[in-house]
Parts: sequence; C-alpha cells; structure tokens
Amino acid sequence: MLLSKTVLPNKTWTLRSFPEKQFCATENAELLEEDLDLKNVDDDKIIVEVHAVSIDAFIRTMLDSNANPAHGGVGLNCPIPALGYGKVIRGNDKFKEGAMVTGLMQAAKYSVSGGEGMQKLVSLPRAPSSVFLHQMGISGIAAYIGMFVSPRKYPRKGETVVISAAAGAVGCIAAQMAKLCGARVVGIAGGEKKKEFLLKELKLDGAVDYKSTTKTVAEQLDEQCPDGIDFFFDNVGGSTLDCVLQRINLHARISICGAISQYDSGKINNKQSIVGPAHYIKVAETSSTISGFNMMHYQSHFLKAIGYLSWHYYRGNIVCPEHVEKGINSFAKSLEMLFAGGHCGRLIVDISGDIE
Amino acid sequence: MLLSKTVLPNKTWTLRSFPEKQFCATENAELLEEDLDLKNVDDDKIIVEVHAVSIDAFIRTMLDSNANPAHGGVGLNCPIPALGYGKVIRGNDKFKEGAMVTGLMQAAKYSVSGGEGMQKLVSLPRAPSSVFLHQMGISGIAAYIGMFVSPRKYPRKGETVVISAAAGAVGCIAAQMAKLCGARVVGIAGGEKKKEFLLKELKLDGAVDYKSTTKTVAEQLDEQCPDGIDFFFDNVGGSTLDCVLQRINLHARISICGAISQYDSGKINNKQSIVGPAHYIKVAETSSTISGFNMMHYQSHFLKAIGYLSWHYYRGNIVCPEHVEKGINSFAKSLEMLFAGGHCGRLIVDISGDIE
Repeated sequence: MLLSKTVLPNKTWTLRSFPEKQFCATENAELLEEDLDLKNVDDDKIIVEVHAVSIDAFIRTMLDSNANPAHGGVGLNCPIPALGYGKVIRGNDKFKEGAMVTGLMQAAKYSVSGGEGMQKLVSLPRAPSSVFLHQMGISGIAAYIGMFVSPRKYPRKGETVVISAAAGAVGCIAAQMAKLCGARVVGIAGGEKKKEFLLKELKLDGAVDYKSTTKTVAEQLDEQCPDGIDFFFDNVGGSTLDCVLQRINLHARISICGAISQYDSGKINNKQSIVGPAHYIKVAETSSTISGFNMMHYQSHFLKAIGYLSWHYYRGNIVCPEHVEKGINSFAKSLEMLFAGGHCGRLIVDISGDIE
Repeated sequence: MLLSKTVLPNKTWTLRSFPEKQFCATENAELLEEDLDLKNVDDDKIIVEVHAVSIDAFIRTMLDSNANPAHGGVGLNCPIPALGYGKVIRGNDKFKEGAMVTGLMQAAKYSVSGGEGMQKLVSLPRAPSSVFLHQMGISGIAAYIGMFVSPRKYPRKGETVVISAAAGAVGCIAAQMAKLCGARVVGIAGGEKKKEFLLKELKLDGAVDYKSTTKTVAEQLDEQCPDGIDFFFDNVGGSTLDCVLQRINLHARISICGAISQYDSGKINNKQSIVGPAHYIKVAETSSTISGFNMMHYQSHFLKAIGYLSWHYYRGNIVCPEHVEKGINSFAKSLEMLFAGGHCGRLIVDISGDIE
C-alpha cells in the first residue's frame, strides 16, 4: 500500500461555465480544492498521482454545451480531462499499485477513474516520460497518420509541403517528417520568434508569418512556394486553408489534422458558422484530395508509428521542444495560452515537479 | 471532294456579352449567320459538318470574363465551343474527308478548326453515334473516374451511396454504376417527374426531391439514409454538399465531379464568393476523404472506362436517356435549360437532324 493516509488533499480543474467563444481560464474553469477520501472511492477505481498533462486543442472541443459526441463532452462542474501520465497509487484488477500509466485523466493532482483509456507507460532507455506526451505519443502519432496513412500519397522528393501551425506540437513533428521524405518544407506560424524557430531549429526551407504586418499569407506563400504546393498538412483551417487551396498543384494532397482557427470561436461544435473552404473546387480542377483523420480510427497503425518515431527520436531527426508550465494551478491558463499561441512545441503542465 | 460549293451558309453561336450571373440566351449569345467561304479557310484547317452537340455545364464556366485557365475561356464575339460529333467535309493531314470525328467543336453548323482535341469517332455495332456524347463518352467516363478511379475506395455492397443531380447525364450513369457495385443508392434531383425517373427508370433505392415544399433535403436524407452515407458523388456543391457531410459515416468518400449550383451564379471563376462546405471538418471526425477530379488528368483510364461502359451498354445495365432539342438555333436556349434543370439525362442538340 503506497498510501499511508486515507485522505489526500486534491486539486481538480472543473468546468464552471461553457465558454461562449474563447476559453477564459478565470471565468470558465475553477480549481476545486477538496480532500479525496479513499473510503468514498469505489474498489474498482484506480487513483493516479498525476505527474504531467499536456495541453491539447481537443480539450477545447469538449467544453461546449453542444459538444460533438466524437469529441466527448464535459458537463458543468465536472472535471476537465487531459492526456497525461502518472503513478497508480491505488490499483484495481487491471492496474497495479506503483505502475506508471498514461492516457486520458483528469486535470488534477489525483485522478480517479476506472482506468478506461489508460495504458501502462512503457519506458524507453534515455527517454524521459514526457516524450510520450509528444513525439512518441499523441502528437507524433497524429503527425504520422496525417502524413503517411490517411493521405493518398505521402510527400516525395522534389515536392513542396506546407504545414500550418508548424511551430505547434503536431506541426513541428509533421514538418520534420516531410523533411525526412526529401520534400521542400514551408511552415506557417505566427510571429518572428516562431519563424526563427522554423528556420533555425527545425531547418525548414521556408517560413510564413501569418502575423506579419507587411505581407499577407498569400504573398508570402507565393514567394516561398514558387512551384505551387503538393502537400498541405493543416492544423488551422479558415483562411489559411483557402490560401493554400488556391496554390495547389495537380494531384495535391490536403491532410486535415485540425482546424484550430475554429475551435476557440465556439464554431467547431456549431458547424453552420464554420467558414468552409471556398476554394474546395480547386480539388476537382487539380484532381486532388482532402483527407481528414481521427487518429482513434487508425489504432492498428500506432505500433508502426511508435517504431518510426522512436527510430528518429534516438537519431535526433525528430525533436519536439517542450514548453513546461509548473504546477496544477497553471493548467487553465495554459489552455488559454494554447490558442493565444505564444509557445513553440508541446505545452505541458508539470504537476509533480519532476520534469527538468 | 465532298464539297461541290465553295461557299457554305453557316450559323455559329457566338458570345455577345459575358453573363454576370445566370446565362441568358437572348442577351449573352448571338447566332451569327455568315457564309463560310472556303477560299478563306487555311489549308491546315478542317471543316466539320456538325451533326450533334451536347450541352455541358463546363461550357458555362468558359463564358466568364475571368474564366479559370483550367476551363479555357471564350472571348467576346468568339464562337461558343461544345462537345459534338460530325463529318469532316474538308480534311487535312490528320483527318480525311468523309471521316466521322468527335471532340470539342463550335456550336455551329460547320465547325472550323485545326482538329485539336478531336478524334475519329469509333462506331460500334447497334450503337447510335449520340451515345458517344453520353454513356460511352464524356458523361460515362466522368462517372467512371469519379466512381472508380479518383476516390479512395469505390462503393461496396451494404454501403449507402448518394448522388446529386442524379437525373443528369453524369449523375444517372454514376447512380447505375453504384447499383452495379451492390450499394443502396439514393439520388437527389428536383421535382416529382425526376423523382419518379430515379425510382422507376433507374430503379434506385431512394430519391430526394430538393424542390419539395413539404420536406427539406436534410429531412429526406434522414429518411432515405437511416444508416448514414458512405459515398457521395457530388455534381452540385453548396448546401447539398453540407447536408450530406453532416451524415457521413466512418471512412466515407466524397467524390467531387462538379458544383453546378455555383456555375450559373458567376461564382465558379470568382471563388471568394463560393460557399465552401462548412461541414468539411466532418471528414476529419470520420477519417473520410474528399477527392476531386478533372477527367483530363486520367486519360490513361479512358480505354478501361469505355470497355466497362460498352459491356454494360450492350447488357442494358447502364442507360442514359437523351433529351433532344432540334436544330442549331436551339443551342443557346438549351444551355439555359441545363441550369433550369427541366430535363432528364443527356441534353443534346441535333443539328443535322439524324437523331431519331
């Protein structure tokens, strides 16, 4: 028994109100401080001491009152979920005490659940656990499926690939995969700092700053992609997608990973108000394809993905910087930050304080 | 020499003004009656006595002042092109006098060109030449490519297929192909007459009348597709596409053949104003694909397509009714009619009077 006490002082982020548009940490979320009394926890539940959680765009899509069932939905005053890892401090039939687990848990110090959606955290030599929240976890697998599995054909040497939100966790991994395919890769991100990150850290062939005040995205794409665009990995949607569609080549592939421009506008679960790609007819004119994916439909590819990702992780070919916020208290502000987009790479909240 | 005269009384439809929105026969087109003096026709040109032309939606996209290069563009006072067939009455190195040819010609009694985009009309036993303008020509090949080549996977037994503009030339052939795949097929068309055509002539499993005053397309789709939609062959775009996207199943395929709802609005060449599919995010949620095609990018498949189409033509498995208008004078009104949509099947203008 790892627990000497029967009452644990817990902190859990709960949904106070459904965000109308932008998620506002102080208005929509509340940090509930409540003792977790083990006597009141059913025997078939496990308690996980959460070590770290990642901040994912999909969390936002679960917070609407009319959340799409595909995304799940969080009820008012219920715990906000997040992907993370931690140690089982009270087990059940499936998970032993002391085991490290990863999966969907609560944004809390102690997460209580039946263990659904969790699995043992496999440790790899010389790899900190936190990489399983990005390049060897959901971000890396999403990039792999959106780059190699879901589209008709992956990027080839000589082709031009564009990645939106290329400084983000999935985008930066997708961009490096495209480079490994031998393609010319142009990333889109906001601000000079991120542009520098794309060019210097990720060594991409070009970068487009969508926040630039001197040039439009269209002008920059024309400069950076003089031969048109063959492959687009899209995390953003909206006008960025339309800008790219106007420049696609014959047999182009558009891989839809997300549409973060729409998530925080209250539109993603009310699709009538989403701005559809007006230039979708370009896919007919160029015999191109728009393919989307929900990674949970491609679970049979996870192992291959992990194999590919760990190969390149150890060789240093694919990196994903971590932007770490400290302590459970910073969770809601971090979710707000994801949409403001000030960070590079993977946004992680270190709850137990063991990420260096 | 087929020609005993050196001057032929010709009639040619020319573009008088660019249609702003809807094409208006009396305003935008003019029937030029002018003698064709053979002395003035260069030796390398051929003259085709046009027997029949078909009325295609793509003609409309060539009539805008800002026509997309992919569609070509017609200058003011220039002849309006149309797909057709006829007899070469003066040949050149490539085409002999007396040969039957088919391809893009002028909407005229006599079409003068270098023979580019034309080919010999292959005659098949017990098949009238006009079938090469629909089920064994452009309509059949477009349906074949949009059903079998361009999408990730063609329709399977047990799947639900929806076809828009299902009473149109391409739509009715695509619908019959889907039936031959063993799928449940639901067609969308406007008006009671067409609905009856879909159910009785094409023997589809369901029909949706988009002009119904009692039920919306959404309501009818819910009734006709209780298990969702696996494959959508879209000729229409706009709100119909969005209605279908809301109902797609896992790994659905959307094949974009056209967007006729946008063609006659002046939008197709000014894409900023096209209504994009707001529900495109559904393709990510369901791991689905939107693929478009321009049949000219798939010429290597034409022979296979013709093989498939003629096999089913002789067995009576794929039919395409002809709606025949008589005489060159009726061409412009027929183009207007295409968008008003009163006919079933292929709209053909019989110029020489040899279609029964």
